[in-house]
Amino acid sequence: MDLNFEGNDLIAAVVQDAVRGDVLMLAWMNREAYERTLATGYVTFYSRSRQRLWVKGESSGNRLRLIEMLADCDRDAVLTRVEVEGDGVACHNGTRTCFTELAWEGR
Amino acid sequence: MDLNFEGNDLIAAVVQDAVRGDVLMLAWMNREAYERTLATGYVTFYSRSRQRLWVKGESSGNRLRLIEMLADCDRDAVLTRVEVEGDGVACHNGTRTCFTELAWEGR
Repeated sequence: MDLNFEGNDLIAAVVQDAVRGDVLMLAWMNREAYERTLATGYVTFYSRSRQRLWVKGESSGNRLRLIEMLADCDRDAVLTRVEVEGDGVACHNGTRTCFTELAWEGR
Repeated sequence: MDLNFEGNDLIAAVVQDAVRGDVLMLAWMNREAYERTLATGYVTFYSRSRQRLWVKGESSGNRLRLIEMLADCDRDAVLTRVEVEGDGVACHNGTRTCFTELAWEGR
């Protein structure tokens, strides 16, 4: 699939647990990271701070095994539905998800 | 909550249906959009193409009523858990979600 890597050359990649449905993290892919993800079946990002490819979980063992990937209507974002390997923790802080800080709760 | 609007001044906002759990879309917020979202309880984005605030669903009636908002560990992305009002369609293409194009299916 041809994604829109124009502009800043990065697309946003949302990571969702394929079984539980919770949103685990958001990171970035350049074309190479996207192609590496498809080729290996494991989610690979492009780290903006380190300016290099980053196989999520490569050192911790908590790799993200790709179950399904969907592109959005603009083709500048993807939803990766995954199984978290290892101890099932996606965030480097040790929590399942990176989205842990409550910013607003309904009224 | 103080989010990280530095750099390009925008944070990524993932929209998830609060009940069904499906990821509906991804868009952007600047500080004003974020504050407007908190103040009104309806998700407001910053449109990069139109360079202005954008109350999602303002014309279609399919507004995104905020149920809960969570920031990630870097505070440069938020997860907005919503109820889609109107006919429950989040994508301007008429589908519930913007993530409809299968880019990869597991093996």
